[in-house]
Order: sequence, then structure tokens, then C-alpha cells
Amino acid sequence: MKDDRSDRYISLVEDALIEYLKDQRIPPTLREAMLYSVQAGGKRLRPCLTLATCEMVGGNVEDALPLACGIEMIHTYSLIHDDLPCIDNDDMRRGKPSNHKKFGEATAVLAGDGLLTYAFQIMLRAAKKTQNRNYINAISAIANGAGVWGVVAGQIEDKAHEKDPNAGEKELLDIHSRKTGALITSALIAGAYTGYPTQDELSAVLDFGEIYGVLFQITDDILDVEGDEKLLGKSIGKDGASGKLTYPKLYGMSESRRMAVEAAVKAKHALDIFGERAKYLYQIVDYTIGRKA
Amino acid sequence: MKDDRSDRYISLVEDALIEYLKDQRIPPTLREAMLYSVQAGGKRLRPCLTLATCEMVGGNVEDALPLACGIEMIHTYSLIHDDLPCIDNDDMRRGKPSNHKKFGEATAVLAGDGLLTYAFQIMLRAAKKTQNRNYINAISAIANGAGVWGVVAGQIEDKAHEKDPNAGEKELLDIHSRKTGALITSALIAGAYTGYPTQDELSAVLDFGEIYGVLFQITDDILDVEGDEKLLGKSIGKDGASGKLTYPKLYGMSESRRMAVEAAVKAKHALDIFGERAKYLYQIVDYTIGRKA
Repeated sequence: MKDDRSDRYISLVEDALIEYLKDQRIPPTLREAMLYSVQAGGKRLRPCLTLATCEMVGGNVEDALPLACGIEMIHTYSLIHDDLPCIDNDDMRRGKPSNHKKFGEATAVLAGDGLLTYAFQIMLRAAKKTQNRNYINAISAIANGAGVWGVVAGQIEDKAHEKDPNAGEKELLDIHSRKTGALITSALIAGAYTGYPTQDELSAVLDFGEIYGVLFQITDDILDVEGDEKLLGKSIGKDGASGKLTYPKLYGMSESRRMAVEAAVKAKHALDIFGERAKYLYQIVDYTIGRKA
Repeated sequence: MKDDRSDRYISLVEDALIEYLKDQRIPPTLREAMLYSVQAGGKRLRPCLTLATCEMVGGNVEDALPLACGIEMIHTYSLIHDDLPCIDNDDMRRGKPSNHKKFGEATAVLAGDGLLTYAFQIMLRAAKKTQNRNYINAISAIANGAGVWGVVAGQIEDKAHEKDPNAGEKELLDIHSRKTGALITSALIAGAYTGYPTQDELSAVLDFGEIYGVLFQITDDILDVEGDEKLLGKSIGKDGASGKLTYPKLYGMSESRRMAVEAAVKAKHALDIFGERAKYLYQIVDYTIGRKA
């Protein structure tokens, strides 16, 4: 993802996020805690997908920017709540103390609540200004990806299956499609809506989103194993201990790698209708499968 | 609030809430925990305000129902997160175990996240179906009331001022206007928007909302003191121990009662423009000031 276009998207998103979080009506403690996690790094994959799909369909990137920022805030809130002692109990996130380690649990809960709600405040403010009736469809898709059929559902299922020895392929696919896939697909669909897509274009983006979501998760699981092997200098069975369901655990590493390649081919194929305009999303697919631990 | 109209509103809202929470795409554990708190009682004040204002302005109550339910879900989520051990650490809510006592902390955090997001899912789904452009203004007002200028801001400030010996009138008013007043005002404004209000009608509802929010909080604080006195059979200085800012603590009981009466008169006066149509909201004002511990 390191090319001019990614740089342009990331800089647009990061500048806008910081601007939104300068709002003086937000109490200082809350604002500081929200900003801390929003600025804690990350690849900005989801907002890049929104802006890229917007441009692929022929939309104006400025229209899609509030949606891209909303999605990144929602993604960030889900990480803050995921890290809480009562959920995953992670002290560190991207090499820095997690939000509750830095600000305390109460502030972390409220910073998460704040980012989730502020995302809707921002997206709805943009909806009031635009003439594009599709904007509501876009925000609705994001709410559905984030909500009780998507991210929140995936988190509760992930927690439930941690200790379930009978969990298998069906559960793995379901958890991932909800916890990770749903918001990624929403990010793509939301971007497409800003560009007045045809029904065929929308369907193509939806197909791509579903396959790309799976690809993203397989490669993420593979990276986790490779990262741990690199760290420890030997082959280990990652996630056997935590009991979390992963592709390598269910299918083995080599079959997981084959599945990733297959998904990448299918994902690109789903965008045939866009021809040359899909070039940047092809690059994201290549980047996703080529990532190294 | 015990009259036919309240009964009709409450039954509309409770039936719709249960219907929304039958959605089988929500994982069973999550759905159960969300439903538990939504069904835990409460006066349904906010959704009644939305439906009443809708009818006062001449709108169709069916149009306002998804907004009324969304607001009640948001109110419920804020109570679940407020009760968490890291925030107010309340084991009981309305005479029943609080959500985290019943389902555990992880599920309670996610049930709150779920209700907050599901509220937007429901309201946005309704926005997609309606031709009323004002619907976006209504949802936006609700998001702003719930968000980082409103409820979430009020919660973090409430927490911060608990141990602040210098907190005074300014802080009290600010916390209450954000934590309680903002969502109440949003509930009224959202209802008004569904009825194609004139600018003067909108301003009147906004004025009423701001005064009524204060009235509600003063009487709530008075009730807390009276309730404790009744329980203990003597006069006590409630909230002196917890350090929370309240009207009786800041002004004394008799001045607080006088302030409540004054606010009630002002609140009714704000609705003059509606004449007879404001009758039900006048009743809510009378009910609010006449509540007994």
C-alpha cells in the first residue's frame, strides 16, 4: 500500500481526523483519550478502501471523507473496548499502552462510546449538507457493519467460542465475517454509494467486499503465526493456548496460504466490471497477500 | 403521566422495542442482555416526549416511532455503561441486578455498544424509507444529544467533578445539561422534525427542551433526597458522601423546590405558540413537578 495514492488517502484521513478532534465542545479529558487511540497508528485500511471505492465508481473523494473518518473512529472504538480488562485484557496496542492502561478504565469505556457516537455525529452532519440521497444508504451500511449483526456480534461470538472445543469451520467463518469482514465490506459499499453507482457496480463491490474480508482475515491469522515464529525463532502453534479460532489452527499453514491466494484471485475477478479503474484495489489485494510479519 | 395518551405512547414504544429485539441476526447472548435492560422498566419519558412533540406539531406518530425507540435504546445503553464497576459500580438498577451483575462485565459492555449502534441501525433504516428530508435532522439531533457534546461528555464530567471540592453552580448546570438535558432536548426536537415544523415551532420546542431538562434534573435531585429521608425516617444530606453535585446540595431543598416551580412555569410558557396542542406536554410538566418519592 505504499504508493502515492495511499499516501494521499492516508494524509487526507489523518488531517481530517485531527481536525474533527479539535472540537472544543468535547471535554478535554475525553478529547485527549479519543485522540490518543485515533493517533496510535494503524494502516488506515478501512478509510483507504472507502476513498478508493468512491473514486473507482466516479465519486468525489471529499464527499466520502466524513464516511471514511467515521469508519476509522468506529474501528478505533472497537479496539479500545476489545482491549478492556473484562474483554481481551490487552495492556498494549500497536506498541503503546492501550487506552485503559493510559487513562483508566472509566475513561476508556467513555472514549470508546464517544468515538462510536461522534462517528455518527460527523457522518450525519455531512448527510445534512449533501444533496446525495445515497448518503443515507452509506451511513446505514456502516451502522449495519458496526452493529449487532456485525462487529458487536463478532466480538460476543469470539468471546463465547474462545472456550468452545467444538467450534469449527462454520463458527470461524461466522465470527470473522462479522467481526472483521462486515466493517470492511461496509467501508467499500459506503465509498461506492458516494459515487452514484449502478446496481451492477454495487453488486460487484459487495462481492469484492465479502471475498476481500476473508482474504484479510486469513492473511492476518497467517501473519500472527509467522510473527510469533520469527519472535521465538521456532515453529509454534499460535492461538492454541488462547483457544481463539484461526485459519492456520483449523486448516494448517500451507492450506491457509493456498486459500489466501485463491481468495485474492477471486477478489480481483469480482471487480472486472471496473476495468482499469479497479487498479488501486488490485494493488490493495496484492499488498494484503504480500504482507510480511 | 398516567392517562390514556401516555398509555398509548408507552404501549407503542414497548411493543416496537420488543419487535426490534426479536431480530434473529443478533447473537442470542447479546440479544438477551440487550432485551433484559430494555425491559427493566423505566418511565419511557424520552420516547413519550418524542411521540408527543410529533403529534403536537402535526406529524404522524408512526413516523416518529423508530426515533422514539432509538432514543430509548440510547438511554438504556448509557445506564448499562454508567453502572459498570469502573464507572458508578452499581449492582442494582430499578430493583433488579444491573446488566453486568446479571451477564458479566464483557457482555454488559457489548450489550451497551450493541444498543447504541442498533439505535442508529433502526433510525437509519427508517430514514431510507421515508421521503421526509427532516428525518436526517432528527437523527443528527439525537446523535448530538447522545454524543461527545451531550451524554458522553456529561458522564466524563460527572466522574471528574465527583472529587472536586471547588465544583459549583457552573459545573452543576453544565453536567446536567449535557448528561440529562441534551438527550431530553433531542427527544423533543426529533419528534418535532417528523411533523414538518416551522422555524418558530422548532425554536419553541428547543426553548421548552432546555427549560424542561433543568426542571427534570432539579426534581430528580429533590426526589433522591426525599426518597432517602423516607427510607431512613429522618432528614439527611444526601449526596454529601458521594460528592456528586446536586441542586439540593448547592441551593438547599426549599430553594430547589422554588426553582422547580419557576422552571415549570417557564417551560409551559415556551409552548404558547401551540395553544391547546401543547396540553399533553403541560401534563408532563405537571407530572414531573408533582412526582413523589
